[in-house]
Amino acid sequence: MDTIVKSGVRQCPFIMKNSTKLVQSKQVFNENYPKCPVFKQVTRNFNTSSPAKAAEVSLKTKTSVKVQADVSTQESKTFQYEQFMENQLVKKRSENSYRYFNNINRIAKEYPMAHQDGLNEKVTVWCSNDYLSLSKHPQVIQKAKETLDIYGVGAGGTRNIAGHNQHCMYLENELAKLHKQEGALVFSSCFVANDSVISTLGKKYPKLVLFSDELNHASMIVGIKNSGCEKKIFKHNNLEDLERLLKETPLNQPKMILFESVYSMCGSVAPIKEIVALAKKYGAITFLDEVHAMGLYGPHGAGVAEHLDFDHHLKTGLAKDHEFKSTMEQIDLITGTLGKSFGSVGGYVAGSKVMIDYIRSFASGFIFTTTLPPAVMSAAEEAINLTKRNITMRTQQQKVTNYLKTKLAKDLKVPMLKNSSHIIPVFIGDALLAKKASDMLLNKHKIYVQAINFPTVAKGTERLRITPTPGHSFKHCDDLINAVDDVFTELNIPRLPSYEKITNMDLFESGEGERLWSEEMLTLKNKDLQDNVFVNQREFLDSSRGY
Amino acid sequence: MDTIVKSGVRQCPFIMKNSTKLVQSKQVFNENYPKCPVFKQVTRNFNTSSPAKAAEVSLKTKTSVKVQADVSTQESKTFQYEQFMENQLVKKRSENSYRYFNNINRIAKEYPMAHQDGLNEKVTVWCSNDYLSLSKHPQVIQKAKETLDIYGVGAGGTRNIAGHNQHCMYLENELAKLHKQEGALVFSSCFVANDSVISTLGKKYPKLVLFSDELNHASMIVGIKNSGCEKKIFKHNNLEDLERLLKETPLNQPKMILFESVYSMCGSVAPIKEIVALAKKYGAITFLDEVHAMGLYGPHGAGVAEHLDFDHHLKTGLAKDHEFKSTMEQIDLITGTLGKSFGSVGGYVAGSKVMIDYIRSFASGFIFTTTLPPAVMSAAEEAINLTKRNITMRTQQQKVTNYLKTKLAKDLKVPMLKNSSHIIPVFIGDALLAKKASDMLLNKHKIYVQAINFPTVAKGTERLRITPTPGHSFKHCDDLINAVDDVFTELNIPRLPSYEKITNMDLFESGEGERLWSEEMLTLKNKDLQDNVFVNQREFLDSSRGY
Repeated sequence: MDTIVKSGVRQCPFIMKNSTKLVQSKQVFNENYPKCPVFKQVTRNFNTSSPAKAAEVSLKTKTSVKVQADVSTQESKTFQYEQFMENQLVKKRSENSYRYFNNINRIAKEYPMAHQDGLNEKVTVWCSNDYLSLSKHPQVIQKAKETLDIYGVGAGGTRNIAGHNQHCMYLENELAKLHKQEGALVFSSCFVANDSVISTLGKKYPKLVLFSDELNHASMIVGIKNSGCEKKIFKHNNLEDLERLLKETPLNQPKMILFESVYSMCGSVAPIKEIVALAKKYGAITFLDEVHAMGLYGPHGAGVAEHLDFDHHLKTGLAKDHEFKSTMEQIDLITGTLGKSFGSVGGYVAGSKVMIDYIRSFASGFIFTTTLPPAVMSAAEEAINLTKRNITMRTQQQKVTNYLKTKLAKDLKVPMLKNSSHIIPVFIGDALLAKKASDMLLNKHKIYVQAINFPTVAKGTERLRITPTPGHSFKHCDDLINAVDDVFTELNIPRLPSYEKITNMDLFESGEGERLWSEEMLTLKNKDLQDNVFVNQREFLDSSRGY
Repeated sequence: MDTIVKSGVRQCPFIMKNSTKLVQSKQVFNENYPKCPVFKQVTRNFNTSSPAKAAEVSLKTKTSVKVQADVSTQESKTFQYEQFMENQLVKKRSENSYRYFNNINRIAKEYPMAHQDGLNEKVTVWCSNDYLSLSKHPQVIQKAKETLDIYGVGAGGTRNIAGHNQHCMYLENELAKLHKQEGALVFSSCFVANDSVISTLGKKYPKLVLFSDELNHASMIVGIKNSGCEKKIFKHNNLEDLERLLKETPLNQPKMILFESVYSMCGSVAPIKEIVALAKKYGAITFLDEVHAMGLYGPHGAGVAEHLDFDHHLKTGLAKDHEFKSTMEQIDLITGTLGKSFGSVGGYVAGSKVMIDYIRSFASGFIFTTTLPPAVMSAAEEAINLTKRNITMRTQQQKVTNYLKTKLAKDLKVPMLKNSSHIIPVFIGDALLAKKASDMLLNKHKIYVQAINFPTVAKGTERLRITPTPGHSFKHCDDLINAVDDVFTELNIPRLPSYEKITNMDLFESGEGERLWSEEMLTLKNKDLQDNVFVNQREFLDSSRGY
C-alpha cells in the first residue's frame, strides 16, 4: 500500500507543490486524496503485488516490453526470474525513476566540453564531480602516460599477491600527510572504502553501535547494513538528536559516529568540531566522509576538517604541530576519493597507524581485490600535489560558485537548496519534470546537467545539481543562467515565491548567505602557502606494507 | 576455545605433517594433544579473551607494539578502540597470518621482471594474475595513452551523472559478444560485481536460496552474507551434494547456484555442464565466476564455459548459432574481471538484456560509484580484442604450465594440488614455512612467488601459487625449478612420498593428468580462427544505457 500511495503522490500535480514532508505522510494522503483521479489510476495499476497482475500492467503500460508467458492463466512450476525483473522495471518506469544514461565523453583539451554519440555533438558539462578539472590537467595526464610506459596498465594482483607496489605507498603517504594522519589505505573506490571499513569494524568491535546521519551516502548505508550492527539514525546535522541517541548507549560500549563533511546532493556542511566534541564526551570514534570536500576546502584542499582550523594549517603547512591537535587530527577515520577533485578513480581511508594496519589486515573488500593500476595511482598522486600547492584553484572554484548562486537566486528566482559549499542544487521536486528540464538543457541549449532522482535523492526532492569548476568561465556561467531561465519558463517550473521551505531545507533567496570561504580567504595566493607544501616527501609508511 | 585449538595445532610440528582434515577436527585434537608443549604455550597466551589479559600477552609476545595503557589494572570507562585492534594484530602475528606486502613493481619492457624498493633490485615475477602479460603489451599501453590524450584520466562521475561514456559501452559490447550474451555491465572490480549482483538479487528475488560451492571466492561469500538469503553450501565440485540440497527446496522457490569455473587457489575446474543441467532440472538460475579463466580457455578466451563447446565456438567464431545453444549461452549470469588476463582493472557481469538492465537499475554497488577511467576501459577493450584473436597466447601459456608441472612433479617430487588448469599450487601446509619458502625464493633466488595464507586459503593448507604466462621462457622455468628444489631442500619441506592425499585434494605424481587443453587443441594457430573474430563490432547495447 505504501508503494501505491507513493506512486499516487508522485503523479499528483497538487501535491507536487507541497513540501515533501507532507508528501511522505501517508496519513495526510489517506485523508485528503483518495478521490484524486491520478491516485485512482495508480491504484488501478498496482492494486495487487502478484506477478500475474503486474505482468498485465506491464503489457498495458509498456507494450515494448516483451512478456514471455501469460503467467496469469497458468501456474508456472518454477520461478519466473526474468518476468519478475521485467515487472519491477515496468514499475520503475511508471514512477519515472528508470534511468537512461547520457553518453558524455568529456574532452581533455576542450574542458568543460564533451561529445555525445557523435564526435561533433558537443555539450558543456555542468554536473561532473571532476571539481577542479584535474582529470584534464596536462601534468596529470603526462604523469599517467609516463607510468604506463614504465609499468604498463594493470597492477596484476591483489596487494598481497604481486599487486603491491611503490605507487600505492607513495599515494598512501601523500594522503596520510595531507590529512595529518599516521597512515592511509587505498581501495578500488570510496564506495568500497566506506562499505569495507564500516562493515569490518562493525563485525569486529564487540556490540558496536553506529550513529549515522540520515543523509549519509549509499555506500555508508550499505556498510551499516552489512556490518549487522545496531544503528541509530540522527536527524541531518542535528547535534541535539545525536547527543540524545549517544546518551542512550552505555559509556563503555563501542560507538562510531558516521557523517560526511559536505553532503553531495544538497551541499550542506556538517558541524564537524561539535560532533568530534560529542564523540569525546561519549567515548565514540568518528568516521568522516570527506569525498565531496577533498581538493576544495582548507588551505591545502584536505577538506572541511582542515578548513575549520584554516589559519593554523595555513601557517604550519603540512607539518604537524605537536602543541595543537587540530580538528582534522582528532578525527579517527577519514575517507575520501581519488575520483572527484583528484581526477582519477579509487577511494581511501586515513587514520592512525594501528587503525590502518588493522583495516589492511582484516577488510575483505581491501584484501581480495586487484590493486588499482599504477598509472591511476600516480596520476592521483600528481593531482594531489597540484591541488595542495594551488589554493587559487579552490578560490576560483568558489568565485564561480558564488557568481552563479547570486545570479540564479537574485536575477532568476530559481529555487536552490541553501548551503555554504560549492554545490548548487536547483530544486525541481518531481522526477518527470526534472528529467524534462535536464533533457531540454541538453537538447535545446547543449548544456548537460543531469536530473537527480530516486534512489540518489528521496522521491519528491528531485533536482538539477550544478557543479561549477575553476575551468568554467563567466561566459559559460551566463550561458547556463540564460538556459536555466528558459527551461524554467518553458516547463513552467515554480520559482522562488512558490516555496516557503522544502522539508527541512532552506532555500537561497538572494544567493548570499554563510559561506565556508570568507572574502579574506578568497584573496589568498599560492605564494601565501608554507614552503613545506611544495616539497615532495616520498616515503613508504609502515602501515602500507606491514611492520 | 576454538581459537586456542587452532592456534595450538598451527604450531605443532607433528600435526603439520598430517592432513588438514585431521587438523580441523577439534575432537581429535582434544583427545591427543592436550599435553603438547606448543599447545600449552598457546593456551597460556590465549587463556582469556578479555582485552586486559590480551594486552598483557601483547606486551610479552611483541614488545615493539606500543601498549597505550595498563588496562589490566584499571577499568577504563570508555572502550579502548586501538587497544582492541592491537590485541587482534598481535594474535594474528602469533598465528603467522599477519601479512607483509612485498613491493613489486613489474616493469613493462622487461617482462616478467619487477623491481623492489630499489630500481636495481630486480626479481622474476611468478605469481601475478596478469596471466597473458597483456598489461605490458605495447598495443594495450598505446591504447591507454591515446585515450588519456583525448579524454584525460578520470571519468568524473557515476554512470548516471556525467560518468557514462562510449568507453563503457564499447567495452560492455565486447564482453557481451565474447560470452554470447545479450548484455554486460562493468563494475569497479569483480569483487564489487560479485558482491553487488548476489546481494542485489538476494534482496529482490523473494525467498531466494543460494547454493554455493564451499571453495567460492571471498567476494561471493561476502555477497551471500550481504544478501541475507538462506544459503546452502555444497561440497567442492560435488554434484551429488548439490543435487541433494536442491531437492530440499520447493521447485517454485527461487534458487541461484553460485560457482567458479577455475578455483584460483587450487586450480580445480567446475563441472559446468552438469551444474547447468541440475539448475534446469530444479528451476534454478546459474551464476558462474569465470575470473580466473578469462583469456585462457575456449578458442577465443571466453572461459571454461566456452571451452566445453570448443569445436562449436571455433567454427562459429563470435556469431550466435540459433540452432544450438551452447553451455556458455545457457548460463544466466557470468562474472569476470578486467584485472587479470585482460591486464587492466575492473569487473563485469554478462547476461540477458533484462537481467543486465535490472542490475543496472537496482545494484547499489554499480549505481553509487565513479565509473572506471576511460583509458582503463579502452585498454581492457584492446586487450580483449588481442586475446580473442590470439589463440597462440593461450596455447603457449598451457605449454609453459605443462612443462613446469611435469618437471616439478617428475624430477623434484614437489607436492602440487592436482588440477586440469593453468594454476600450479605447490603445497606447503604451514604458514610460517610457506613464508620462509617465499622469502628464500625472493632473497636468495630473486624469484617472487607469494606465500598464500589464511584468509585466502584455509589454515593448514598454505601454499606457493605459481602462475606461468606465455611471457615466461623455458629458461625462466628452469631457473624456477632449480630455485624451488633448493628451497625445498634447505627448509626441509616434505616432498611427494610424504603425502598420500591433502584433505579432498589429489596431488600430481607425474605432472601428467587430465588437461583442459588437449594435445590437438594445442596445435591450433590464429589462422584457424573464424574471420568474424577479427572484425571490430563497435555497438552501443540498449542494456548499457537504458531503453
